[in-house]
Amino acid sequence: MDHRVINFGAGPSALPEPVLEEAMKGLLNFQGTGIGIAEISHRSKEFGAFLSNVESLIRSQLGVPSTHSILFTQGGGSAQFSAVVLNFLARHRLLHPELSGEDPVLDYVVTGSWSKKAAEEAKRLGGSKVNIAADARKHSQDQKSFDNIPPHDAYTFSADPALIYYCENETVDGVQYSNNESAPSSFPFHLLKQGSLLPLVADYSSSFMSRPIPHLADHALIFAGAQKNIGPAGLTVLIVRQDCIVDVDAAAKLGAIPVPLTMSYKTLADSKSLYNTPPVLTIFISGLVLQRMKDQGGVEYYAEVNRRKAEKVYEVLKTGKSKGVLHGKVKEGSGSWTNIVFDVLGDGLEAKFLAEAEKLGMKSLKGHRSIGGIRVSLYNAITEEQTDKLVAYIFDFVEQNAPQSVQY
Amino acid sequence: MDHRVINFGAGPSALPEPVLEEAMKGLLNFQGTGIGIAEISHRSKEFGAFLSNVESLIRSQLGVPSTHSILFTQGGGSAQFSAVVLNFLARHRLLHPELSGEDPVLDYVVTGSWSKKAAEEAKRLGGSKVNIAADARKHSQDQKSFDNIPPHDAYTFSADPALIYYCENETVDGVQYSNNESAPSSFPFHLLKQGSLLPLVADYSSSFMSRPIPHLADHALIFAGAQKNIGPAGLTVLIVRQDCIVDVDAAAKLGAIPVPLTMSYKTLADSKSLYNTPPVLTIFISGLVLQRMKDQGGVEYYAEVNRRKAEKVYEVLKTGKSKGVLHGKVKEGSGSWTNIVFDVLGDGLEAKFLAEAEKLGMKSLKGHRSIGGIRVSLYNAITEEQTDKLVAYIFDFVEQNAPQSVQY
Repeated sequence: MDHRVINFGAGPSALPEPVLEEAMKGLLNFQGTGIGIAEISHRSKEFGAFLSNVESLIRSQLGVPSTHSILFTQGGGSAQFSAVVLNFLARHRLLHPELSGEDPVLDYVVTGSWSKKAAEEAKRLGGSKVNIAADARKHSQDQKSFDNIPPHDAYTFSADPALIYYCENETVDGVQYSNNESAPSSFPFHLLKQGSLLPLVADYSSSFMSRPIPHLADHALIFAGAQKNIGPAGLTVLIVRQDCIVDVDAAAKLGAIPVPLTMSYKTLADSKSLYNTPPVLTIFISGLVLQRMKDQGGVEYYAEVNRRKAEKVYEVLKTGKSKGVLHGKVKEGSGSWTNIVFDVLGDGLEAKFLAEAEKLGMKSLKGHRSIGGIRVSLYNAITEEQTDKLVAYIFDFVEQNAPQSVQY
Repeated sequence: MDHRVINFGAGPSALPEPVLEEAMKGLLNFQGTGIGIAEISHRSKEFGAFLSNVESLIRSQLGVPSTHSILFTQGGGSAQFSAVVLNFLARHRLLHPELSGEDPVLDYVVTGSWSKKAAEEAKRLGGSKVNIAADARKHSQDQKSFDNIPPHDAYTFSADPALIYYCENETVDGVQYSNNESAPSSFPFHLLKQGSLLPLVADYSSSFMSRPIPHLADHALIFAGAQKNIGPAGLTVLIVRQDCIVDVDAAAKLGAIPVPLTMSYKTLADSKSLYNTPPVLTIFISGLVLQRMKDQGGVEYYAEVNRRKAEKVYEVLKTGKSKGVLHGKVKEGSGSWTNIVFDVLGDGLEAKFLAEAEKLGMKSLKGHRSIGGIRVSLYNAITEEQTDKLVAYIFDFVEQNAPQSVQY
């Protein structure tokens, strides 16, 4: 086909068409340098100014305080699963040289496939002292699914962990912490030790820049792959509190695990993210997306649109409206704004749902291979109009496929 | 300016304009999917087929045997400086469990800034048992510059090192191993233990795909960042002999340093480079470059053109022709085909050289900040015609600035 479809994929995911058109120009000639953006030196003054503006666009829209540095690296969330363990073990070792020889505890909150993977990597690298501070499966209907954000009384944090880890939005399972602090599915910030420099780490890969970050300043580290809301795959954004940028070599001398140089936050910070060649083209496209966001009203504007988009899809999943054809997989109140997962019930109906959607120009609606079903990803680049089109289609599909005998 | 200049930068570096134009189309719509290449799932069948073709394009052009896997990752050469140490220490530990507790030796050949950095990282991570198998500075005119490839009798390899490391082309210093085995500046393959699965590791970042790789099959690992000859920054290509893809967790149980999961070659191999989201857009552009190479006659064709390009520039650096205005920094026979470094002698002449070149549409000729002077990078995308234009300019510059009183 020669026209663009609506891409509801979970990532890499849709980017705004005006940005892609701007990117095309930059590929041939970046800012009148006569050199394309994929070809220009990362140490050129033009790219330096661009990178510094990308940082400002994130800092101003999210309100990142001066206590926190914004760094750029490669490797995605999976590389950070390792990097956070190594950097925070090093930090803990430097803070507590007297505990040399003892492995500190690492607290992990497990609410879905990604936080589970992160906890497994901590176990691989950091030894056996991983404390699962909460496991959402214990609070699920079938005792094994990631279908909820656990209630506040489900959390057991350690006294002095090297890190406290959670994933704000679980892309595969479709659960997300509420950004409303009084909701039962909010993150229990009030249970954490107050007034101290907490080693609180959050994976924001799939919700970064989709809405403001609650308690941002209380985080030690927030990381996010670019390939959901802000750009192509291959760029990772880190927001790091400066006390977590530590001398990993000094820590290694005290017995901490040695940290590969490009994984050390200190290497990134000291070099202003230019220790080695960064993914220049990916940063460029991300910068264009962030600039467009700002021009449209910033992350608050997107938060409002994203809330409405999600509400519209969840509305059609309600029992009365889905008429036994659809079944939402996630407990009410725990549903993600970004990735909405449901099953299409009835023989062969899921395939029919996907095929008819594709005929209407709506693609990538298949759920993650590990859990199946349907997944609708509503990243920033998906407009409200595109969401309306999907919702209208789902309503039609329900109408046409509802069992006639069922009473609602 | 609205036109493109000739970009002699050392990386990120020039890409072929036809590829950029093809890439622009793919940004909006990849292979008729209706989804742009930066937006498509890395697990889609379309991208899967593309990735597999990229592998074939490398395998066929370089003649990579079936004993070796071709893998794709992120992080550039600097991440590999760490990854090679960790993976090869793990391999050595599994091969020699009886040596548990002892640190094996790591052999590094240091011929320039990059191999020096790699050796430093080995020291950081692997302990103090780094053997500098040869140090080019000892063979330089001033005993401190990287201006040569050492003679064969300068190498002292260890009996059973965990790895033997060299950098084929030093981008900063402009020295490169000869691809002519009988040249004194070739790599001394004949000094290595014959018939064994040698842990020979080569950094090919800046010469990858510029010419065939001598003794490719004898290497345990060849790695290269894409951002020189084949694509934008953010992609690293690995050619790994399969006996070097080892169970790093089993090695850690025997005391080896734990390896971050995304740095383990086994993770990459088991997942066919799709353990986590790869840099899809960067792989796409690299694939277009590699396809174009193949269509033009492959790496042999480029080798021939690259040889001529380099010869033309070295010709003008010869004493008689450069008339005391230019001074090549590298010993004859050790000069890189890819990065040619020289000084412009005389007060203010270097700035004049750069400014006049820029007026003629030739940019990024400034040498690396650590050594200064001029650096001409002649990656694959620089055509012979563009090289001719530069050479003509240099001849003119020499003519106009040669001291009148000097006799040649």
